[in-house]
Amino acid sequence: MLLAAGAGRRLRADGRLTSPKPLVRLLGLSLLERAILTARAAAGCPEVVIALGCDAPQIQKALGDGRRLGVRPRYALSPDWERGNGASALAARPFLRGCERFLLLMSDHVLDPEIPKALLAHGDALARGEADVLLAVDREPGPHIDLEDATKVRLDRDGRITAIGKGLDGYDAIDTGAFLCTPALFDALEEALRAGDGSLSGGVRALARRGRVRAVDVTGRFWIDVDTPQALRTAERLLLRRLRQKPTDGPVARHLNRPLSIRLSRWLVRTPLTPTQLSWLSFMVAAAGAVALALPGYPALALGGLLAQLSSVLDGCDGEVARLKLQTSERGGWLDAVLDRYADALLVGGLTHHAWLVAPGPGTAVWLWGLAALSGVLLNSYTADKYDAFLKRALEEGRRRPLRLGRDVRLFLIFLGALLNAPLATLVALALLNHGEVLRRLWLLGRA
Amino acid sequence: MLLAAGAGRRLRADGRLTSPKPLVRLLGLSLLERAILTARAAAGCPEVVIALGCDAPQIQKALGDGRRLGVRPRYALSPDWERGNGASALAARPFLRGCERFLLLMSDHVLDPEIPKALLAHGDALARGEADVLLAVDREPGPHIDLEDATKVRLDRDGRITAIGKGLDGYDAIDTGAFLCTPALFDALEEALRAGDGSLSGGVRALARRGRVRAVDVTGRFWIDVDTPQALRTAERLLLRRLRQKPTDGPVARHLNRPLSIRLSRWLVRTPLTPTQLSWLSFMVAAAGAVALALPGYPALALGGLLAQLSSVLDGCDGEVARLKLQTSERGGWLDAVLDRYADALLVGGLTHHAWLVAPGPGTAVWLWGLAALSGVLLNSYTADKYDAFLKRALEEGRRRPLRLGRDVRLFLIFLGALLNAPLATLVALALLNHGEVLRRLWLLGRA
Repeated sequence: MLLAAGAGRRLRADGRLTSPKPLVRLLGLSLLERAILTARAAAGCPEVVIALGCDAPQIQKALGDGRRLGVRPRYALSPDWERGNGASALAARPFLRGCERFLLLMSDHVLDPEIPKALLAHGDALARGEADVLLAVDREPGPHIDLEDATKVRLDRDGRITAIGKGLDGYDAIDTGAFLCTPALFDALEEALRAGDGSLSGGVRALARRGRVRAVDVTGRFWIDVDTPQALRTAERLLLRRLRQKPTDGPVARHLNRPLSIRLSRWLVRTPLTPTQLSWLSFMVAAAGAVALALPGYPALALGGLLAQLSSVLDGCDGEVARLKLQTSERGGWLDAVLDRYADALLVGGLTHHAWLVAPGPGTAVWLWGLAALSGVLLNSYTADKYDAFLKRALEEGRRRPLRLGRDVRLFLIFLGALLNAPLATLVALALLNHGEVLRRLWLLGRA
Repeated sequence: MLLAAGAGRRLRADGRLTSPKPLVRLLGLSLLERAILTARAAAGCPEVVIALGCDAPQIQKALGDGRRLGVRPRYALSPDWERGNGASALAARPFLRGCERFLLLMSDHVLDPEIPKALLAHGDALARGEADVLLAVDREPGPHIDLEDATKVRLDRDGRITAIGKGLDGYDAIDTGAFLCTPALFDALEEALRAGDGSLSGGVRALARRGRVRAVDVTGRFWIDVDTPQALRTAERLLLRRLRQKPTDGPVARHLNRPLSIRLSRWLVRTPLTPTQLSWLSFMVAAAGAVALALPGYPALALGGLLAQLSSVLDGCDGEVARLKLQTSERGGWLDAVLDRYADALLVGGLTHHAWLVAPGPGTAVWLWGLAALSGVLLNSYTADKYDAFLKRALEEGRRRPLRLGRDVRLFLIFLGALLNAPLATLVALALLNHGEVLRRLWLLGRA
């Protein structure tokens, strides 16, 4: 269930944003779409109830039948939305009859999907009757969280919430706006509404008084409440920054490709290009590079090198756009990996052909180095996957992740080698470095 | 805990076997070693208590400190072993004080490690106090089980054992000789012994009378009680036959390589060669084949093809010996896979060189086909792993496993192509078939 009923006055206060708050766009998705996809990524369930109030027709029209997002939205129109978000939530009650438990997210909160996942992982506590509501809380909110405006909670030793509100003096953690609820919440919301408090916090407070609300600690996970223009800019900046933290990135990816690809992705999310289309685009740029490398003459070689490096930068964009638009999929990762291997094979093939063109004599050595480079590159990728899976436990036991000669370095070598007009030396380097890396893995494995 | 105290009179009755029964060898391991490794494969625990009686010094000397098998055996010498295997088991009692539960296996039973694993998977029933002993039972024993001599059990509807013994008239299942016990077993054994019954079944019967023994159904899993020379021969035959049932085997592996490699492995298990050494041996035969393929002249080419096919047969032996000697390991599988890829790359390289030697003109087309074949072969292997993992769920949903162009077919093609003196045609076939297979996987993935 998503709350998207408020007016969002503060976000629209400076007059620059004209659309309803849930439809305000952030990196290619509206806030509401983002919340829907976050819930879907966590729960894997296509059923969504959206509580609407202010601007309801406009929001309903924008989202439509939800097929584009892979969900079946039902709209709960609240006549009472101006009395508070708790009053709005009550409109969803008839849609959730018979539902054992449901996620409750705010459409104006941007969350790491791991936050609702953590709630669902603790769902047993509701099934066992230990609580009526679980609330994801952050004990160490980042500097981007507006503490003055945030809802605070006090916890007892067992993780039960004893007090909740914006004005708490002493507090233990911050309310992230993500809940896992049983329908008991609705009775509490009504109780609070009768007492004159139409807020969601009011209902949660009523349950907390009876010891029926538990906290789930999600400290360290990203979340932000987007209720001012500044928070919107901060959310964009932080979402983009998170893309830099991919642990498998090699040195060229981290320092050169990633900063460039993130700038590109920031623009690409606003286009209708899908991550799969971007994977193919990167592949086609590499294939064009391979053709250029294979042609005679230095200009063609240099162009081929440039296209190889451009493809390497573009190769980051499919994953980035997928993550920004919450569209990551195993299938997408598989396609990207296979296309990358084909691109690598074509580039090495093109480079070998060029080296042969400029070689004196029959050039047998060039072809043999080409075969060696090709097998080295592909075996590096082959063993990387297997090796990673195998050494994962060793790594989890705290050992240092061994340096990996990855695709970023490989394509950068081709780029440099082409610019320096040294195709054969590049092949030799690719062969030696890649086979060396594979042999190093075999050796490490023998010692492990 | 392993029972290895009996005299094994029936097994030694024909006078051909002179060693103590637990030391009788079956495909490279003694029965006792086999039981120890089975327990270790299931429980992953190096602590083993071995109840000894007849021939105790000889058995103790043969096993030593157990380091060779990766276990720490402690020997429980039973003065009462002639009173029955229950009496022998009692000698282990002091060693198991404070132990919550333990596997109890017979050293003369050959079991699929999945049987003790199934017992351990049901261990919660003991922790919850629902039973004192779990017994693995087989409802549909194979034709190799001597029903007359087998211990039968009767079960109630909840899987509780109500009667156990060799002479039961009506019965529901057969006792496989694998137990998961709490130390409560020892009290029951003493009780039975006082009543004059020194057998393990006697103790189990005493517990069963109080409803404290539960059955775990392991129907369909392989097990055999090796107590006659004929049963020993049957066990060998069935263990070898099980090697044929590898679901990933392609047509050449199934009909040609596997029958040959199983014959070889039957002999190899008696040598000290380890599976890792066999992986290297297969690789070195392929490498020698690659050198032969690369040399000029038809005899060299044909020899190379023969060595490629021989390597393909040998490639089955490492896994077979590992399975027969209970030495399978993730590390071994990884090494085998990487060496196979290197062998493939070398063979394609050698074949390309030969094709170039006999080609008219500069032979550029030959080298390009070589690059295409090499990338096809390696990408086939690369995508096979990823594809299998990805499509596993689809397959589990009952769809047909798509035909896979595997290594057996690949090396057989090289063998045939070399014998037919058609190196270039072989490269073209390898390139087209392997890339075709990869593209087919991409296409299937797009539809999935």
